[in-house]
Amino acid sequence: MMDKEIFVKLLQQRQYKAVRSILDVMNEVDIASLLSELEDKELALAFRLIPKDKAAEVFANMDSSMQTNLVEMFSEKELRELLDDLYMDDTVDLLEELPANLVNRILDTVSPSDRVLINQLLNYPEDSAGSIMTTEYVDIRESMTVAQAMAHIKETGIHKETIYTCYVTDKRKLIGIVSAKDLMTTDDNVLINDLMETEIISVNTHTDKEEVAQLFTKYDFLAIPVLDTDGRMVGIVTFDDAMDVMVDEATEDITKMAAINPSEKTYFETSVFAHAKNRIPWLLILMFTSIITGTIITKYEDAFAAIPLLVSFIPMLMDTGGNCGSQSSTLIIRGLALSQIQFKDIFRVIFKEFRISLIVGSVLAVTNGIRIMIQYDNPSLAVVIALSLIGTVVAAKLVGCMLPLFASKVHLDPAIMASPLITTLVDIFSILIYFNVATMLFNL
Amino acid sequence: MMDKEIFVKLLQQRQYKAVRSILDVMNEVDIASLLSELEDKELALAFRLIPKDKAAEVFANMDSSMQTNLVEMFSEKELRELLDDLYMDDTVDLLEELPANLVNRILDTVSPSDRVLINQLLNYPEDSAGSIMTTEYVDIRESMTVAQAMAHIKETGIHKETIYTCYVTDKRKLIGIVSAKDLMTTDDNVLINDLMETEIISVNTHTDKEEVAQLFTKYDFLAIPVLDTDGRMVGIVTFDDAMDVMVDEATEDITKMAAINPSEKTYFETSVFAHAKNRIPWLLILMFTSIITGTIITKYEDAFAAIPLLVSFIPMLMDTGGNCGSQSSTLIIRGLALSQIQFKDIFRVIFKEFRISLIVGSVLAVTNGIRIMIQYDNPSLAVVIALSLIGTVVAAKLVGCMLPLFASKVHLDPAIMASPLITTLVDIFSILIYFNVATMLFNL
Repeated sequence: MMDKEIFVKLLQQRQYKAVRSILDVMNEVDIASLLSELEDKELALAFRLIPKDKAAEVFANMDSSMQTNLVEMFSEKELRELLDDLYMDDTVDLLEELPANLVNRILDTVSPSDRVLINQLLNYPEDSAGSIMTTEYVDIRESMTVAQAMAHIKETGIHKETIYTCYVTDKRKLIGIVSAKDLMTTDDNVLINDLMETEIISVNTHTDKEEVAQLFTKYDFLAIPVLDTDGRMVGIVTFDDAMDVMVDEATEDITKMAAINPSEKTYFETSVFAHAKNRIPWLLILMFTSIITGTIITKYEDAFAAIPLLVSFIPMLMDTGGNCGSQSSTLIIRGLALSQIQFKDIFRVIFKEFRISLIVGSVLAVTNGIRIMIQYDNPSLAVVIALSLIGTVVAAKLVGCMLPLFASKVHLDPAIMASPLITTLVDIFSILIYFNVATMLFNL
Repeated sequence: MMDKEIFVKLLQQRQYKAVRSILDVMNEVDIASLLSELEDKELALAFRLIPKDKAAEVFANMDSSMQTNLVEMFSEKELRELLDDLYMDDTVDLLEELPANLVNRILDTVSPSDRVLINQLLNYPEDSAGSIMTTEYVDIRESMTVAQAMAHIKETGIHKETIYTCYVTDKRKLIGIVSAKDLMTTDDNVLINDLMETEIISVNTHTDKEEVAQLFTKYDFLAIPVLDTDGRMVGIVTFDDAMDVMVDEATEDITKMAAINPSEKTYFETSVFAHAKNRIPWLLILMFTSIITGTIITKYEDAFAAIPLLVSFIPMLMDTGGNCGSQSSTLIIRGLALSQIQFKDIFRVIFKEFRISLIVGSVLAVTNGIRIMIQYDNPSLAVVIALSLIGTVVAAKLVGCMLPLFASKVHLDPAIMASPLITTLVDIFSILIYFNVATMLFNL
């Protein structure tokens, strides 16, 4: 990794030749991250020194605020050169983040046909395959030979985001797929028609991008073709964009599982107010749910007035119940996300969790029973706590495994059925079980 | 997707030609999942009907119990053919799961040189780049021309897992990289030496596979070269294996965050006892931590003996504290995992969480205060609960954001500092804050 201090010094001393040599050997992603540490003025200067064949790729790897700064400083000519080299999906990503005046400046700069295409791409729903696809792919004919296809790629391929999957089309309908590996390892005069794979897995422009990402994990594709509603091929999604979707979706699930409304921005990019806004709604819902538990407790005032020690076990029972419930719900939520568990498995899941909870509950009950005997030498208290623990663990695990399954059944995101909600609901069960066991065994 | 019933019927009626045609058009991944639903006898029969060029790929996509069944049923000749076509990393994956007698049978079948290689690959640590790499890659010389390199690939490429990144080596040292795209779009007589990229990002056989996966997400590589400790090139990791690592790591993090020891198996593959074993240790630790909270409560027996209503707010305060803490810890854990947050940001994080918690705490306090005024018409109680809520939220968010950062500092996995542990610790704070505020304001 290049040292920022040295780089800035070279820039300030106008050692442009040295800067250019450094930028020449550096990777595009690393250049983007080095440039992100520079001041605006140095940034523009450094960007202009990047070798032309790397500039667009470096630009595509910058965050949106840096991109905006650069676009503002560019001349018409520089902007046109950049847009010529940017892949269509990166151009659209850029436009989605830019302020309106800069969007107009860019739309004025591109060719009329590109403008139509860009507007169309900008109109796809945010979570759809259309919004992450690129329109640049290698298009060949079934009547070509391998040699002709290779010649076609040599002519046109340089501006395509990936040339490793070639698409055989006929009147814009996708009829076959040939990999670059097949082309490179097959004799020159074989016909594409004899080489192409005709069993094609494709998605629609409106397919959810999470579904698209799952196809990549399942089939190890490099790219997947995107068809419009009339079945014509309009673009491809490449594996790098699918990987980004996977990471984002995992973040979204994890965030939802912690009772936060997910945000597209990173932790530091999100303002204090936005953070508060994302966290308050679920906290309010959960707070009012736990008031129910509180209200139930008041019904047993006589019990803990008689034996105040009973109150001291409330946190332990509530926490254990919550933890047991989260364990089950988390495993089920993840299993659902990876398609390893489906709603039809509900009885298998319940039976499994029931057996697990008996083992877990017994171990916890015995351990705690011994602890109470040592600390208080009170056998009835030990029995009350042991029975309450087993009951709480069983209830928690059953609630924890069932709620995500029901959520998936009614097409809610199972991730919202995670620890916070489960914990709050399980509290009600643990308090009810505990005080009922206690009043019965102590004859209160 | 092929219907299982129809497929089995065709098999039983010995309509082998039809079965072969079906298998011919199906994708390898889908064939593997169709075969997973068959009985052992049908499985062996169906597998033998798969077109030869697809069989190894289908085999690689099966789960380990199916692979074991097949290997047991194979003749020597079938086994040798399969092993010839399997990529080295898939062979090693297979051997890692097979029972010892079958491992020996396979090692007897392969060539002596492959046996040495396999033993070496089996010896890499489980989480290392060495354990997921393949030894089959395209190796070219800098003195070749583009045309010579292409001819070399046509000759040898068909047995390589990926030919899209070609490695230029000299006495087994990696000196450059050329992409298939460069080869396909450059004139035939250009020298590889003039075309190759010499700034190479590589990993070591012992690099943690999670780090390898992060390099793929960062740089959008198709493959990354793996060097041994002497700097010689020994293999490559391909993007499909990196994607699998990413999914597995996310699952591991999510599991740890729910206080479960992670397992490599899916939910249903894990036995009831194994599930219980994975869940009990953390439950015990957390149970004993929450006993501390219980013990603290007993210190305030006089307070809730005087005002029993105080007990009914315990669940609400504990739950809210736990939820606030989980929100902060989850965002920090995810930020650390994606390298968006580092330990050096700790003061920025604390200041941010402090401001967020003041907003969140105030909103919850006011809402709850109004609720208490309506329900109990008791201004002092409203003030006690409001102040306790703000104190709890601030404490929870600070504990929640700091613990994962400290864990990362001492090279513990931050994921264990997630909701369950945070909730249990925050409970102590909420109870202390609550009863201190209450005893002060009510002069208890």
